[in-house]
Amino acid sequence: MTATIHIITPVITEGIRSLDDVAPLAGKDLHFTHSLLEKGPSSIESEVDEALAVPGIMQAALAAEESGADAVIIDCMGDPGLKAARELVRIPVLGPAETSMHLAAMLGHKFSIVTVLDSVRPLLDDLARVYAVHDKLASIRVINIPVLEIEQRIAEVQDCLAEIALAAVEQDGADVIVLGCTGFLGCADAITERLESRGYSVPVIDPVPATVCVAQALVKAGLTHSSKTYPKPGPKSMAGLATFQG
Amino acid sequence: MTATIHIITPVITEGIRSLDDVAPLAGKDLHFTHSLLEKGPSSIESEVDEALAVPGIMQAALAAEESGADAVIIDCMGDPGLKAARELVRIPVLGPAETSMHLAAMLGHKFSIVTVLDSVRPLLDDLARVYAVHDKLASIRVINIPVLEIEQRIAEVQDCLAEIALAAVEQDGADVIVLGCTGFLGCADAITERLESRGYSVPVIDPVPATVCVAQALVKAGLTHSSKTYPKPGPKSMAGLATFQG
Amino acid sequence: MTATIHIITPVITEGIRSLDDVAPLAGKDLHFTHSLLEKGPSSIESEVDEALAVPGIMQAALAAEESGADAVIIDCMGDPGLKAARELVRIPVLGPAETSMHLAAMLGHKFSIVTVLDSVRPLLDDLARVYAVHDKLASIRVINIPVLEIEQRIAEVQDCLAEIALAAVEQDGADVIVLGCTGFLGCADAITERLESRGYSVPVIDPVPATVCVAQALVKAGLTHSSKTYPKPGPKSMAGLATFQG
Amino acid sequence: MTATIHIITPVITEGIRSLDDVAPLAGKDLHFTHSLLEKGPSSIESEVDEALAVPGIMQAALAAEESGADAVIIDCMGDPGLKAARELVRIPVLGPAETSMHLAAMLGHKFSIVTVLDSVRPLLDDLARVYAVHDKLASIRVINIPVLEIEQRIAEVQDCLAEIALAAVEQDGADVIVLGCTGFLGCADAITERLESRGYSVPVIDPVPATVCVAQALVKAGLTHSSKTYPKPGPKSMAGLATFQG
Amino acid sequence: MTATIHIITPVITEGIRSLDDVAPLAGKDLHFTHSLLEKGPSSIESEVDEALAVPGIMQAALAAEESGADAVIIDCMGDPGLKAARELVRIPVLGPAETSMHLAAMLGHKFSIVTVLDSVRPLLDDLARVYAVHDKLASIRVINIPVLEIEQRIAEVQDCLAEIALAAVEQDGADVIVLGCTGFLGCADAITERLESRGYSVPVIDPVPATVCVAQALVKAGLTHSSKTYPKPGPKSMAGLATFQG
Amino acid sequence: MTATIHIITPVITEGIRSLDDVAPLAGKDLHFTHSLLEKGPSSIESEVDEALAVPGIMQAALAAEESGADAVIIDCMGDPGLKAARELVRIPVLGPAETSMHLAAMLGHKFSIVTVLDSVRPLLDDLARVYAVHDKLASIRVINIPVLEIEQRIAEVQDCLAEIALAAVEQDGADVIVLGCTGFLGCADAITERLESRGYSVPVIDPVPATVCVAQALVKAGLTHSSKTYPKPGPKSMAGLATFQG
Repeated sequence: MTATIHIITPVITEGIRSLDDVAPLAGKDLHFTHSLLEKGPSSIESEVDEALAVPGIMQAALAAEESGADAVIIDCMGDPGLKAARELVRIPVLGPAETSMHLAAMLGHKFSIVTVLDSVRPLLDDLARVYAVHDKLASIRVINIPVLEIEQRIAEVQDCLAEIALAAVEQDGADVIVLGCTGFLGCADAITERLESRGYSVPVIDPVPATVCVAQALVKAGLTHSSKTYPKPGPKSMAGLATFQG
Repeated sequence: MTATIHIITPVITEGIRSLDDVAPLAGKDLHFTHSLLEKGPSSIESEVDEALAVPGIMQAALAAEESGADAVIIDCMGDPGLKAARELVRIPVLGPAETSMHLAAMLGHKFSIVTVLDSVRPLLDDLARVYAVHDKLASIRVINIPVLEIEQRIAEVQDCLAEIALAAVEQDGADVIVLGCTGFLGCADAITERLESRGYSVPVIDPVPATVCVAQALVKAGLTHSSKTYPKPGPKSMAGLATFQG
Repeated sequence: MTATIHIITPVITEGIRSLDDVAPLAGKDLHFTHSLLEKGPSSIESEVDEALAVPGIMQAALAAEESGADAVIIDCMGDPGLKAARELVRIPVLGPAETSMHLAAMLGHKFSIVTVLDSVRPLLDDLARVYAVHDKLASIRVINIPVLEIEQRIAEVQDCLAEIALAAVEQDGADVIVLGCTGFLGCADAITERLESRGYSVPVIDPVPATVCVAQALVKAGLTHSSKTYPKPGPKSMAGLATFQG
Repeated sequence: MTATIHIITPVITEGIRSLDDVAPLAGKDLHFTHSLLEKGPSSIESEVDEALAVPGIMQAALAAEESGADAVIIDCMGDPGLKAARELVRIPVLGPAETSMHLAAMLGHKFSIVTVLDSVRPLLDDLARVYAVHDKLASIRVINIPVLEIEQRIAEVQDCLAEIALAAVEQDGADVIVLGCTGFLGCADAITERLESRGYSVPVIDPVPATVCVAQALVKAGLTHSSKTYPKPGPKSMAGLATFQG
Repeated sequence: MTATIHIITPVITEGIRSLDDVAPLAGKDLHFTHSLLEKGPSSIESEVDEALAVPGIMQAALAAEESGADAVIIDCMGDPGLKAARELVRIPVLGPAETSMHLAAMLGHKFSIVTVLDSVRPLLDDLARVYAVHDKLASIRVINIPVLEIEQRIAEVQDCLAEIALAAVEQDGADVIVLGCTGFLGCADAITERLESRGYSVPVIDPVPATVCVAQALVKAGLTHSSKTYPKPGPKSMAGLATFQG
Repeated sequence: MTATIHIITPVITEGIRSLDDVAPLAGKDLHFTHSLLEKGPSSIESEVDEALAVPGIMQAALAAEESGADAVIIDCMGDPGLKAARELVRIPVLGPAETSMHLAAMLGHKFSIVTVLDSVRPLLDDLARVYAVHDKLASIRVINIPVLEIEQRIAEVQDCLAEIALAAVEQDGADVIVLGCTGFLGCADAITERLESRGYSVPVIDPVPATVCVAQALVKAGLTHSSKTYPKPGPKSMAGLATFQG
């Protein structure tokens, strides 16, 4: 059984995501396709950024389904457009926040999210509430470094993340760490190492690879989201979309 | 003290809202302005519809603030774009769902929402959770009539609403009824009458006028949303918006 | 449209509240009347104090309705007698705790209450739970100054309030501050200023003026509490009240 | 070890409670004293009734402690004055609602309350929330018979209680039944019998005897309520009480 | 990458589970091993049954890890021994209840569990609470057929399951169905069909295959449970286990 | 009325519990019997330890009921086997964690648990959730001393407990302290003293004596757990138990 997972990176910033990032997960049974947005924000750090990204995410999800993808992943920890995209397509659409939080809830008693900026706290906290795993959320801690500076300040980012992850474990009671920005892809090892050096063996969830694996699991299990929760909108809305696209 | 409240009806459908609808609330101290969207859906009954409306809502909120409005109301019970618009402007932005649910929580022990279609249930239920009044929500009941048919089937709509409001009171323990679609403006009396005829004296909240009155209260009290929860996005995102609008 | 709001200050202490305090809110469309209790405590800082105040509050609410008031406000952050008074009259009865907490829930992600003494913490925490906004409550912090010393130590009070409000914002994650005693009327500016000086732009809710504005909104919207939640007690209880008064 | 438990029946109605009701629980190690209110309602079925009863309850609790009682029970399922009385005395003060709900939570997965009138539903539901056992509350069902008619309609009362207890078990998932009015004392057997005849062996908690047994347990264990939650009010409030009594 | 998943069917009943049941999921990258208990119950329908199964489950998990398994699945919807087994081994241990409930929470707004007997209701409800997905649980419905009769009454079982699944969707608001007994393996299609015939397109989660797919995902993602939540017990407890086994 | 309470100390460690510990509670109306396990762990500090203790607890509960005991107490704060034992016998079975948490919930606004090791935190936190008193739990603090070292390090234990109890009161808002290990029996006084010396008069619940008193109360009140929640398992499971015992 072979699956194709389409990753939508919901920004316009070239080079921010490469399929190399998930290459270790690919194989004979798993292929990836990828798209950026044509219109949208350069990064997502606010409700405004999310709102600007959603129309493009909906189009990309529709296009992915038409191209034969077996699942779609929205490559942003705000899960922008997750519910809207699910209304439009029948293949599974996964958000890394929803997926990582549920995995974290399964792997330990409490989890903390380590992320970029204070501005995304309310958003992530609300997601935890809507996803119904809020009782498991120990804390949200931030490094105060914007998304678009992650790459050039990567050593500092990893250091700060390790620092706040340690604080989350020691002061907030976290048993699992969730990376709170998909731009942190690849940073889990540095955090794990730091925690291990302090005697803590706790899982660190890197949302994109973790979500890829769960997406593959859903495809294999033949499961997708409920059409009762996410009914396909009628022709009116589609017309609305067409107008919008034009 | 005089206040101007701008009402954004976040659809493209001419004639669906008129300032006559709120005229009884206007006076020397309260003026209204109004706008529809130029691009967007014809009605809002899904997550897709909401997503398509939000960019236009953000623009309209910015325009209202620039024009000197004292508060903005988003005329849809899904509260689309509420958080995004709050990031963009410093004047109060009110959603009728958030406002009505908090009023309902204040007026009785439990409230029920009576609304259009099954498809909006999860959305309203999630809003109640995010707004933190979920413990007060007795039930959501629907009449299964789409938004754009409300006007021509108004007698049937009022009858159905009265019927499910009665069921909410008698079977679900509702003490307050919230009209779950701003298209129901003006239907509160018919429901109140039916409930009274059965011996129930419970408030029926008509979201648009109720939200107008609370908006005026916020302006008078000098209160607006927190810049800590809703920080103004930096120039990056604004550029994103420009690109999007182009 | 003109409204008269009756403010019940539920203590026996002359001079603790003056209509001057709310004069800026009055106008052609809004008049105030006011009463103290004849029997009751000198201030409210405990469950005992509240219990002693309630019979007088009930009488005052009845008297206000008879005199033609359009709404009643109980001028104490413990909301003493709120539910009992609602059973007795059909005009809206508002408690500043309930009203301020719901406003705070609407204006930001989390709110903190800054108040007088440790002894009122459980009471306020329970109110937040009963009002169903507990998920939004970040913390309750106290200045350890009794109610009756507020006036003569006003500079110290404002300074302490500003200090704990800042701590609530920085350490507890508060996005909105609620003044937790109606005796703090007028202190919001000092707190706002201090917070602004530290770079935080968060709303500070002064309960009495905020509640006045919401009361006026309810009157204008034609809304009052549910007779299903607050049914008028039968003649037995009224006789009980007469006996009590005799 | 010998204990004296004082039962305050917080109404003015002579004959509504006799020490014979709890005689089977008395013995060498347990004595009872009892008082009615001098001023107050004839029965408690509303927030107004409760408020009218609390001043008398506070006085009675103080008097009981002075007379050497080891514990006080407030003989009403609304637990009126429970918190206020605890502030005034250091001996344990128990409410049958709080005690019965915690016992019910210990004895089964979910419990239902069967009580007199619709008017007490919100009150009992709020108590369950404040007592933190709301997750265990399956339902509240009522017989629609006022408190003062219980005695003369006792056969009908028992029949109705058995009927709604059965409905609670079969339709609401109740595993334990709590009698929701202390006036139902002695009705547990009839309900148990009916449930047994339908194959259900579920505990039926008769609040007064159950609370007596827990009060005795607290005395024996040397436990009383926390002075941190219920600090003794200072002289100001006591003066207030004196004024009130005068 | 190749993974071996060990399935522990925690009963002594030969033939109740065969690797044929999961054969469609096996392949070059996924192998299965399987064990029954030597000592334990013949089926699991109570807390007693679970308790009797756990020592054997712990031994089987230890043996699986020693034999080189990459993950362990406990083949029972009560997730017996899940936490104890996680303390003993470092490879992921999955319970089908925990896994299915989290998947269900991701796939729709609310889910219902359809299961065997009333006796397992409290157990499943408590699990939903501990797993923190209780807000997503619409209902638990039962067919009243014991586990060991499933096989010989399979047509009736499928029919009853379809019936109660339909009721859960129509009356309880379920958007996703979770089979509440691993003995129902293979029954999902019949339920899906019945629901589709009534116009409902909702996912039906068959716990064993779904859990297998998630187990494979965890192995691929390099994730396992937190050693902070599940620390390896010291030598004392291991000695205890030895004693027990002797 | 005379009651016999059987205490099961669910470990194999001779001398860890003596009936002298509860002698002050015994009298003409209350007798104690006691048993250790024949097979099981030497102490309980993990889920594994609990699992190993449960089969022996079930047998001991059955034996106690056969011998005419009126109630059973499981002498461990993890409440191991509580639900399983309740399925097997009709006399009340009490866990000190469940009983103490409900008492604590009744005696103050919030309670903290002071216990032995980090490893029992998730377990106690989950119990608070399942027992539905989680809203009342302020914190869990640990002294990091294993159970079997309590006796020889008793002075240090008492000192550490007093220290963390004080921290719980001052920093976490605890109004009541619950000793989180039955091995702490007798330590309440030292903690109370320390708290009193700092001006805090808060109850300290010693779980074994407190549970004994509540057990006696249940016997006197004629109450036991619900057979609907805890139905007696059929012959299959009993056979399973026989096999296990053999």
